[in-house]
Amino acid sequence: MSDVRTYPRFEGIHTFMRFNYEPSPQPVDVVLLGAPFDTAASYRVGARFGPEAIRRVSSLLRPANMYHRIRPDDSLRIVDGGDAMVIPGNIERSYASITERVSSWLAEGATPIMLGGDHSIALAELRALAGKYGPVAMIQFDAHGDTSDEYWGEKDTQATPFRSAVEEGLLNPAKSTQIGMRGTVYDTNDIEAGRQLGFDVVTMEQVRERGLKPVMQAAQLRAGNTPVFVSFDIDCLDPAYAPGTGTPEIGGFTTFEAQHMIHQLVGLNCVGFDVVEVLPSQDVSEITALAAATVAFEFLTLIAVNNKFKSR
Amino acid sequence: MSDVRTYPRFEGIHTFMRFNYEPSPQPVDVVLLGAPFDTAASYRVGARFGPEAIRRVSSLLRPANMYHRIRPDDSLRIVDGGDAMVIPGNIERSYASITERVSSWLAEGATPIMLGGDHSIALAELRALAGKYGPVAMIQFDAHGDTSDEYWGEKDTQATPFRSAVEEGLLNPAKSTQIGMRGTVYDTNDIEAGRQLGFDVVTMEQVRERGLKPVMQAAQLRAGNTPVFVSFDIDCLDPAYAPGTGTPEIGGFTTFEAQHMIHQLVGLNCVGFDVVEVLPSQDVSEITALAAATVAFEFLTLIAVNNKFKSR
Amino acid sequence: MSDVRTYPRFEGIHTFMRFNYEPSPQPVDVVLLGAPFDTAASYRVGARFGPEAIRRVSSLLRPANMYHRIRPDDSLRIVDGGDAMVIPGNIERSYASITERVSSWLAEGATPIMLGGDHSIALAELRALAGKYGPVAMIQFDAHGDTSDEYWGEKDTQATPFRSAVEEGLLNPAKSTQIGMRGTVYDTNDIEAGRQLGFDVVTMEQVRERGLKPVMQAAQLRAGNTPVFVSFDIDCLDPAYAPGTGTPEIGGFTTFEAQHMIHQLVGLNCVGFDVVEVLPSQDVSEITALAAATVAFEFLTLIAVNNKFKSR
Amino acid sequence: MSDVRTYPRFEGIHTFMRFNYEPSPQPVDVVLLGAPFDTAASYRVGARFGPEAIRRVSSLLRPANMYHRIRPDDSLRIVDGGDAMVIPGNIERSYASITERVSSWLAEGATPIMLGGDHSIALAELRALAGKYGPVAMIQFDAHGDTSDEYWGEKDTQATPFRSAVEEGLLNPAKSTQIGMRGTVYDTNDIEAGRQLGFDVVTMEQVRERGLKPVMQAAQLRAGNTPVFVSFDIDCLDPAYAPGTGTPEIGGFTTFEAQHMIHQLVGLNCVGFDVVEVLPSQDVSEITALAAATVAFEFLTLIAVNNKFKSR
Amino acid sequence: MSDVRTYPRFEGIHTFMRFNYEPSPQPVDVVLLGAPFDTAASYRVGARFGPEAIRRVSSLLRPANMYHRIRPDDSLRIVDGGDAMVIPGNIERSYASITERVSSWLAEGATPIMLGGDHSIALAELRALAGKYGPVAMIQFDAHGDTSDEYWGEKDTQATPFRSAVEEGLLNPAKSTQIGMRGTVYDTNDIEAGRQLGFDVVTMEQVRERGLKPVMQAAQLRAGNTPVFVSFDIDCLDPAYAPGTGTPEIGGFTTFEAQHMIHQLVGLNCVGFDVVEVLPSQDVSEITALAAATVAFEFLTLIAVNNKFKSR
Amino acid sequence: MSDVRTYPRFEGIHTFMRFNYEPSPQPVDVVLLGAPFDTAASYRVGARFGPEAIRRVSSLLRPANMYHRIRPDDSLRIVDGGDAMVIPGNIERSYASITERVSSWLAEGATPIMLGGDHSIALAELRALAGKYGPVAMIQFDAHGDTSDEYWGEKDTQATPFRSAVEEGLLNPAKSTQIGMRGTVYDTNDIEAGRQLGFDVVTMEQVRERGLKPVMQAAQLRAGNTPVFVSFDIDCLDPAYAPGTGTPEIGGFTTFEAQHMIHQLVGLNCVGFDVVEVLPSQDVSEITALAAATVAFEFLTLIAVNNKFKSR
Repeated sequence: MSDVRTYPRFEGIHTFMRFNYEPSPQPVDVVLLGAPFDTAASYRVGARFGPEAIRRVSSLLRPANMYHRIRPDDSLRIVDGGDAMVIPGNIERSYASITERVSSWLAEGATPIMLGGDHSIALAELRALAGKYGPVAMIQFDAHGDTSDEYWGEKDTQATPFRSAVEEGLLNPAKSTQIGMRGTVYDTNDIEAGRQLGFDVVTMEQVRERGLKPVMQAAQLRAGNTPVFVSFDIDCLDPAYAPGTGTPEIGGFTTFEAQHMIHQLVGLNCVGFDVVEVLPSQDVSEITALAAATVAFEFLTLIAVNNKFKSR
Repeated sequence: MSDVRTYPRFEGIHTFMRFNYEPSPQPVDVVLLGAPFDTAASYRVGARFGPEAIRRVSSLLRPANMYHRIRPDDSLRIVDGGDAMVIPGNIERSYASITERVSSWLAEGATPIMLGGDHSIALAELRALAGKYGPVAMIQFDAHGDTSDEYWGEKDTQATPFRSAVEEGLLNPAKSTQIGMRGTVYDTNDIEAGRQLGFDVVTMEQVRERGLKPVMQAAQLRAGNTPVFVSFDIDCLDPAYAPGTGTPEIGGFTTFEAQHMIHQLVGLNCVGFDVVEVLPSQDVSEITALAAATVAFEFLTLIAVNNKFKSR
Repeated sequence: MSDVRTYPRFEGIHTFMRFNYEPSPQPVDVVLLGAPFDTAASYRVGARFGPEAIRRVSSLLRPANMYHRIRPDDSLRIVDGGDAMVIPGNIERSYASITERVSSWLAEGATPIMLGGDHSIALAELRALAGKYGPVAMIQFDAHGDTSDEYWGEKDTQATPFRSAVEEGLLNPAKSTQIGMRGTVYDTNDIEAGRQLGFDVVTMEQVRERGLKPVMQAAQLRAGNTPVFVSFDIDCLDPAYAPGTGTPEIGGFTTFEAQHMIHQLVGLNCVGFDVVEVLPSQDVSEITALAAATVAFEFLTLIAVNNKFKSR
Repeated sequence: MSDVRTYPRFEGIHTFMRFNYEPSPQPVDVVLLGAPFDTAASYRVGARFGPEAIRRVSSLLRPANMYHRIRPDDSLRIVDGGDAMVIPGNIERSYASITERVSSWLAEGATPIMLGGDHSIALAELRALAGKYGPVAMIQFDAHGDTSDEYWGEKDTQATPFRSAVEEGLLNPAKSTQIGMRGTVYDTNDIEAGRQLGFDVVTMEQVRERGLKPVMQAAQLRAGNTPVFVSFDIDCLDPAYAPGTGTPEIGGFTTFEAQHMIHQLVGLNCVGFDVVEVLPSQDVSEITALAAATVAFEFLTLIAVNNKFKSR
Repeated sequence: MSDVRTYPRFEGIHTFMRFNYEPSPQPVDVVLLGAPFDTAASYRVGARFGPEAIRRVSSLLRPANMYHRIRPDDSLRIVDGGDAMVIPGNIERSYASITERVSSWLAEGATPIMLGGDHSIALAELRALAGKYGPVAMIQFDAHGDTSDEYWGEKDTQATPFRSAVEEGLLNPAKSTQIGMRGTVYDTNDIEAGRQLGFDVVTMEQVRERGLKPVMQAAQLRAGNTPVFVSFDIDCLDPAYAPGTGTPEIGGFTTFEAQHMIHQLVGLNCVGFDVVEVLPSQDVSEITALAAATVAFEFLTLIAVNNKFKSR
Repeated sequence: MSDVRTYPRFEGIHTFMRFNYEPSPQPVDVVLLGAPFDTAASYRVGARFGPEAIRRVSSLLRPANMYHRIRPDDSLRIVDGGDAMVIPGNIERSYASITERVSSWLAEGATPIMLGGDHSIALAELRALAGKYGPVAMIQFDAHGDTSDEYWGEKDTQATPFRSAVEEGLLNPAKSTQIGMRGTVYDTNDIEAGRQLGFDVVTMEQVRERGLKPVMQAAQLRAGNTPVFVSFDIDCLDPAYAPGTGTPEIGGFTTFEAQHMIHQLVGLNCVGFDVVEVLPSQDVSEITALAAATVAFEFLTLIAVNNKFKSR
């Protein structure tokens, strides 16, 4: 990563935070991977340009985290692994390609942070993670549970990945928490459906009643020592903070709250991450992409902090 | 309303939430009516495209309300009645046309939810409501009182409808509350002017001091059993949440707060609604239109919930 | 169609030019049909919102054509048939649905004008047209031949419909002309590939050398009396005139030239039309949608003029 | 006017080309006057912000004209007179105010260049011009004749000023030419209606057939020595060149052609000008406003050139 | 200032709130001064258009302050002094020009409110203020401390003004407070660096823990009777509230909070102000400029209130 | 360069056309080099983001040229060399850095194609080219001559590079042609000033009179065998075709004309190129960046064609 105080930030080829681009799997601590897939989008489409937008605006980020007083690349080897190849219109081939790419980095010991793409890519990533760790726990920040059964008669869409993940045995719902559900729903018992699958579903209304910290503590307790997949759908943020997304819902989180919740994940055994549903064609002044890039940076920091933790 | 899980939401002709379009008054429970009038706008103009923008983005909405666990169209017959004809540049003819259209639906027993258009249309709607119910109470969410006397020597503008409504005996100010006034004003006693008309005027500063729930409870108490007109000027929201409006003021409500306040209206005898001042040419990523559409959906839900309430 | 001089154009529910919305096939002369499909897009995606955008801006159009001095709806029964249902991510089901819908209107004697959607929908429409007429001729305005063999190993994409159409025997290439090819290509012999399929391929460079009228006369001569499908890819226009599209190429036609070329189609036996590749999320001030809507209106006019012609 | 080579162009208070702001009529050669009126707009509205946008971008203009090799302010006293007061929603009061303001500058000997505002303001300006000169000739660049009789039952709209001007005896149609009519019309004989009023109406199609120079020469011949009002509706330009306008039509002029046509006005006795229908909320990158500002600058130059001419 | 209830707000030449434009220093109470300088920007650039954008949107502001129930221009003589000349690319000449201009107004007894421009202009303003008052206290609202030493080997950038100001003896850090630091930093001890310079640095995290009022009270106590410079970097606001800025950071203040903090400055001896880093090319619907204009108006009000205070 | 028919074009890290990124000079045929410098901009600023925007949209380009029927990377080794480091605000250090970078690639035998950045970077590139070849000829496509003497008292700005280049003996004006000058100028003899320097200055008006081909033939004749620097200022295009630039002028070239003129350069001894003044913050739908990327691709093709030529 070139020094932003020597080399102006807007210059150069835009990898994530200008970390080195390494398309071939190799032994590092963290790999950023794009998954520019959007065929499964149910409304607005175009998240295929999400990874590019996140990388571009990530040049605004400076290397150190003010909250944790840590500079992740002091202790971690971090690379940008480029994009997993996806094929627009072909969900199966795209899933296979993503799973294969994530798996090959996992084999090298790298923790993946995926940049979406629509939320359906999480299923492909979970297949890779479960292939290494067995069924994982999940902490999901999202406006929608994405646990629908099928949609327009289709099995794999933006609205269905986590039901499939449970059915395939990739996720342990008894260890998993979904946070921030809100907005209009298909059915009056949509939320119950997620709970019946086994997830702890905390609606936005409940977050407001219980408070951010207690919700996060409960999620942490529930996950315990299980390896955790952290999934951040940018639409958990309010459209004022993240207009560039496919299925916005009013009444969401602020970015400060999102950062605050991620800060509470210290101590968990996080083995994989994603930030999804950034839709640049609807973004304004790159604020959605900046939020996503900063979330990815908080994940980087979290890995560094948790490593320190463990090594004590 | 076609099933959004079978028929993708972006498809088809865009009525409000894809409810049937019925231009002729008929016995239903609720009618959505556009009033694309903007001649009375004092600054930015173009709210004539507001109803269209709200309808378009309303296709994002799913049929059930997560908070109330209710699906309004399970118990209500709901139609989109199209637009009341308005004539740009001619306030009087436009008012007459709107009043006539609302009245004809009221005669069929429908509760109107109007989509603006600038706020001056509320006067036309109040003429229709008062024609059926006599002087009504009002709960108004707004950055501005809209109780000016005249403006540029003109009697009917965006800034004057509620003074006229009181003077014409359409509104009972002693039962009415204005919530959220803020920003710069014409005169140091602008707020007092509204109070002298008889309204309870709760400024934003006072809302922050007293809290949302107490304010809403006082408004509900004040309205009592009087038929209530609920008027939602989208500029009650902060410009971050509703940039697409004609006279924005910083320091406003979030969408979560707006939804929360509307939730507190359960139990009131609401007989008419409007959502106004959506200005699509200034909107970004349709977030203002989405807020307005969701507010209209909250109104639909409120009618369904209040009906249940009554029928118990 | 309501009178735009009585009823302001921005008012009401937005069907194409505010013609009546008739979702069920019925005996009319012309049906406008949306096909909001975009799964086959190779670069920017979002043409699913194309039909909506074209309908919305079509309210700007007035009923009469200045060039031909004719008002199409004086002699034609015209309806907006809404959208053919498509399923994002599932090309086969979408094609079947579009073909079925077009066929059912053809059975009623209606000439279809399709509003896209990406260009892949042309294959579905051609299946319906060939079902009625046998192999048809085509006059295609486009920056790209769309005659690739496969793409990312996929058979059905934006880049392939017309090769498939020839292979399926839907199109008679010996009667067909492709006009306006330009820009960068995959291979130095891309143009030859189209010619080897049998099309007359007229590149932009050749149009400039030969002139618009001679090119159109040759196309007309080539088609002869065969039923003709007219396909207008909006990217045949220069990006200055049509920025809202998925794979723009500089150096294209002006809108005046496009209108001029369509005017030369008088006398042909046109049995179907489409206007495709409008991508609203990249449009500016609706100029691309307006171009598409006006092209569709030129098609309406052409049908009226050609009918007069025949009936003489 | 401050020297743009000393004082960067983006600095300072934005009058037209940074000429002095003089709100009170005084003896100068040319006065720029805004007329931010848009109540008469039939479709998109917001031209009230047109004068401001034209002034702002006019800071890009340098003081000398490359074509005529002249610097207008070398021989002319030029001021920005600010805006004529208009009252949104009140056409009559606005017209009276504009006419009064223009008249008072005419009385000082200033040639007015008005910046609109919608095209209806031309009627108010013509009242002032005819008050001084009697019926004037007009050369109008426009996509629409604006000679409708009434519209939505209203007499004064964007679509009607020149019929009114003829009826009031302000315009001599036998000396006047309308250039560039195109697009969809209300009636198949709309163009004839303009001709029956007495105008020479040259449609776009005719301009293309006859050529720009011959058309302009005919217009000049027709006007003869009569004092001429030059009216430039920005929608005479193609939407690619002027997207920021209220009722765009595809197939219009380029800016080069517009400049070329204005260059042909040398030798005419031009007594008043306007540039209208700039709608900033739909503009992109200020290109429409820049076109309008440059047209106004061409008018300034024309006055300087014609003065030289006369004084020989 | 023309009466906005008589003369529509969008009309006329746009000075700040339409106060008189007076380019020559003269004895007034307050002068608004633009400093359209942006050469020192480290990332996005274009704040040279900030003063213009703030002035333009300031026409939305009405003359009285609802919170303080005061109309500043009742007790204060206020003028818009235009822009201090700056020379793009030449920092030294620009600084000299700004300092000279501010000094000449200070000599007339005017309190300056500067409109930026990038934050580097604060150094030029501080040179003028210290020239009159000696070392001043500062209350700075900002996401960044701007106390870097050098940047790309350059001494004067957006990131360095306050270190320079301390080193030059213009600022008394022991009396000064920086509020709202957040986001990514260059070094894990960036915050400490500001504290070592002598500032009280209150990070966003600390503001959230301690509360707005206590933070402001501490800042007030710390400043005591020292003349205070109030510096408002618009990026202290969250990007949702102020997208139009050069180096946005998520997790910032709302506009309500900003107004609230400024309200707490009553009683301080404020001698100079700035609002900086408004970047119109990234703004949406002018919300950033509106926030900046309202902040400037709050400063105007504060001066009026504090004057009253003193004169008691 | 990865195969766009296998690997979707929107995927991966965005170098120019996805050619390999090689920051270290090495023996290749062509190097693309960004120069993200914009400190010398006289009006709108932000061209520092130009290289990034051109690279991003260049992913739309396919590898072969339809006009020349050639695929440049069949015969040329082409790499993206990244950006020459520049330091915002420091012209001298930036120039030195650019010159050094270009020189080091020239030493390896690579022909540089620079992506700007404002036009002032041409001076730095010319220093490198003249260092190798001695005084070069120039063919410049531009709306402005950029031959001012000084500007705001500054020697190095966007408006001055070619006067400096002549004075430094880098350019041979007797062999050089400037094409497309138009718009407003500082002085009535601005054009003469360029001619007095020795350039052949062909104004837009003259291009229109003489025709594109004759103009290009004259330029080619004038350059003869001298090594040629081709400089393409994107503002030579009309703002409709290139809105994203700093000092737009109406009445410019179309993209078709620009491509056509570049096609006429076959046979010249071109040793260096640039495409400058792309300003992404003002671009719409990336059409300006796409024009610039395509121009750069035409340059690539030209090198390949000219090489073939020579090797015959």
